[in-house]
Amino acid sequence: MPVNLPAPNPSELFPIAGVRIGITEAGIRKANRKDLTVFLLDAGASVSGVFTQNRFCAAPVQVCRTHLASGAGVRAMLINTGNANAGTGQEGLARAQRTCEALAGKLAISPEQVLPFSTGVIMEPLPVDRIEAGLDAALADAREDHWLRAAEAIMTTDTIAKAFGAQVKIGGALVSITGISKGAGMIRPNMATMLGFMATDACVSQTLMQQLARELAEGSFNRVTVDGDTSTNDSFVLVATNKAAHAPIDSLDSADGQALKAAMLGVARQLAQAIVRDGEGATKFISIQVEGGKSAAECRQVAYAIAHSPLVKTAFFASDPNLGRILAAVGYAGIDDLDQAGIDLYLDDVHVAVKGGRNPAYREEDGQRVMKQSEITVRVVLGRGQAQDTVWTCDLSHDYVTINADYRS
Amino acid sequence: MPVNLPAPNPSELFPIAGVRIGITEAGIRKANRKDLTVFLLDAGASVSGVFTQNRFCAAPVQVCRTHLASGAGVRAMLINTGNANAGTGQEGLARAQRTCEALAGKLAISPEQVLPFSTGVIMEPLPVDRIEAGLDAALADAREDHWLRAAEAIMTTDTIAKAFGAQVKIGGALVSITGISKGAGMIRPNMATMLGFMATDACVSQTLMQQLARELAEGSFNRVTVDGDTSTNDSFVLVATNKAAHAPIDSLDSADGQALKAAMLGVARQLAQAIVRDGEGATKFISIQVEGGKSAAECRQVAYAIAHSPLVKTAFFASDPNLGRILAAVGYAGIDDLDQAGIDLYLDDVHVAVKGGRNPAYREEDGQRVMKQSEITVRVVLGRGQAQDTVWTCDLSHDYVTINADYRS
Repeated sequence: MPVNLPAPNPSELFPIAGVRIGITEAGIRKANRKDLTVFLLDAGASVSGVFTQNRFCAAPVQVCRTHLASGAGVRAMLINTGNANAGTGQEGLARAQRTCEALAGKLAISPEQVLPFSTGVIMEPLPVDRIEAGLDAALADAREDHWLRAAEAIMTTDTIAKAFGAQVKIGGALVSITGISKGAGMIRPNMATMLGFMATDACVSQTLMQQLARELAEGSFNRVTVDGDTSTNDSFVLVATNKAAHAPIDSLDSADGQALKAAMLGVARQLAQAIVRDGEGATKFISIQVEGGKSAAECRQVAYAIAHSPLVKTAFFASDPNLGRILAAVGYAGIDDLDQAGIDLYLDDVHVAVKGGRNPAYREEDGQRVMKQSEITVRVVLGRGQAQDTVWTCDLSHDYVTINADYRS
Repeated sequence: MPVNLPAPNPSELFPIAGVRIGITEAGIRKANRKDLTVFLLDAGASVSGVFTQNRFCAAPVQVCRTHLASGAGVRAMLINTGNANAGTGQEGLARAQRTCEALAGKLAISPEQVLPFSTGVIMEPLPVDRIEAGLDAALADAREDHWLRAAEAIMTTDTIAKAFGAQVKIGGALVSITGISKGAGMIRPNMATMLGFMATDACVSQTLMQQLARELAEGSFNRVTVDGDTSTNDSFVLVATNKAAHAPIDSLDSADGQALKAAMLGVARQLAQAIVRDGEGATKFISIQVEGGKSAAECRQVAYAIAHSPLVKTAFFASDPNLGRILAAVGYAGIDDLDQAGIDLYLDDVHVAVKGGRNPAYREEDGQRVMKQSEITVRVVLGRGQAQDTVWTCDLSHDYVTINADYRS
């Protein structure tokens, strides 16, 4: 059961002019399951992506990087579930390449104009033949209003589809933004999560796209964690189809640039948080806000130490205000000159620790009340500077163990 | 159920001349439970300790450091379970100090000659009155052959007492070594684990003791992890009572020094591994051996990334050879210039991955066979140097969640 995450609202999933989506059941790992998705982009779209920093990055991630760098102009994206094509060596690269060639052949474009994405089990050979056999059906299915179907087709252990949209006025034109994402384990994105796709009909020059993707990822996907495991396949791709009737945005600092970025960040953040809300076994959604640091980086370091502590996560699962576990995680986060006497801890509005010790006014019932909620904010004040940062995570439950002990069986 | 960890063998727990141990039930947190232990050391013992690197270190750890640095000569150690006296601020320091004063008063020594240790719940005030009230009974209980009782009295969520001993000839004299330790959660020692105590009647100058403690911890407690949570209270203390009939050891590089260190390391490693074997919810004992690195530090970094990955740990629990999860952890361990094409992976004798991809000869049944064992060696070859290191860990099971969700209730 995801935490406060309703099913996507179809009326918010705006078709994006210049983007058509088709899906099919290719039987990649299991039968009777939507597992293959094709995005078709009109010529002239600006496209950028950010990808996992995992050194064991998957074959499709390597191919995506090469194809984006070629400057050929992306015209299609091909996404399969059921197989991650990671840990597959040279053969994996060849197979990812073959799927691009197959789709390019059908569309009369070059293979460099196709971006491939895979998610699923690691270290199994990608069944290229089944993907090739499914392409015709996926292409026949392609329509502009298929965002929800795509959100469903990229799910793996996700329990609910994740799709959000927004509209914003840019230079007098109403611009649409729609995005989808999937989780739900091996989630501690380090550039972005496998997989997030967002498109807009706004007009954004290709030169700005990489900066936009990076900044959006930094404020959304790069701030969530389920289990601290950075996936081999994390990919976040941004498409601007340049169809809307406004002057192209040439700077993210312009009024139009800022408006578009804010609207897109809102969608990206919903997509990223949805992954945590539907994190494997999650029963609580936890915002970890660290402030008073010397730098945002050290605030993040502390926030991740808390977010990754199995002891903290199980305490949240149990609604147990065993808050010393949070202080312990702050202490081992790796800030060498941290002075515990400067640290305050809050749980929502409850002031738990003062200057490194228990707040004399703190009462266990108050902590208990907050811990029982399904949405909790942990606020740590380091007392050594002005910087701050926030990370979103979930608890660690029996279901996390069950899901990951049974994943392949 | 601990993993291949029998109950301590009383005939291996050698009394150490000059060390007497008394325990009692002080009712610190729960009634009818041995929870207070006193070690009494004859004058002239050499004592050293290594302590947690957690910046939120507990009050007793701070007091231990001060008292050891005072050079007053340690004559007693006072250990309580049920309360960690961590996250307790200035008041916690005062309380730790008061327990030292109380014991010192009864022994007619100075408070600086007492080392205090606490383990249990964090952020609760230490019940000094109950500790003081229990001292007489603990002192009346003091005997040289009470090592097993002490091992039992320092347990918290441990399911079995941990105590080992050894004897070794040094300079013609038979020297005894006995040690105890406890876990079982919040275990990723960074100097040593809460709590390890070892004593020997060997003659070791005080000037060598700190080096000896550090080197022993590096080869034992600092190589184990249960959940990656470095405790606020980790303490590993070494006592040499200087009672044995041999010339004092003046260098760890001498023949005698090497012999003593090897024997002590053997005991320390058993104590440290026992903590993992009895790790919260553990069903498997896993050695993670990383070799072919540029430095031991980077090998350790990779080993810990694997050892802390919840996905890897749940796969071990499930006996599921989902080995791509190990490759993914290698990839995100933080070695920026790591080339996945250089990496091989073995599970015991089974060669799973070759040059970053699946070994064509690898068969799932072979991986499955090893994963079902209760003792497993994961061997990662980085292919970029000659360094190596090993870390010991356990799996992540339902019981870990249960234990830590219910710990305080």
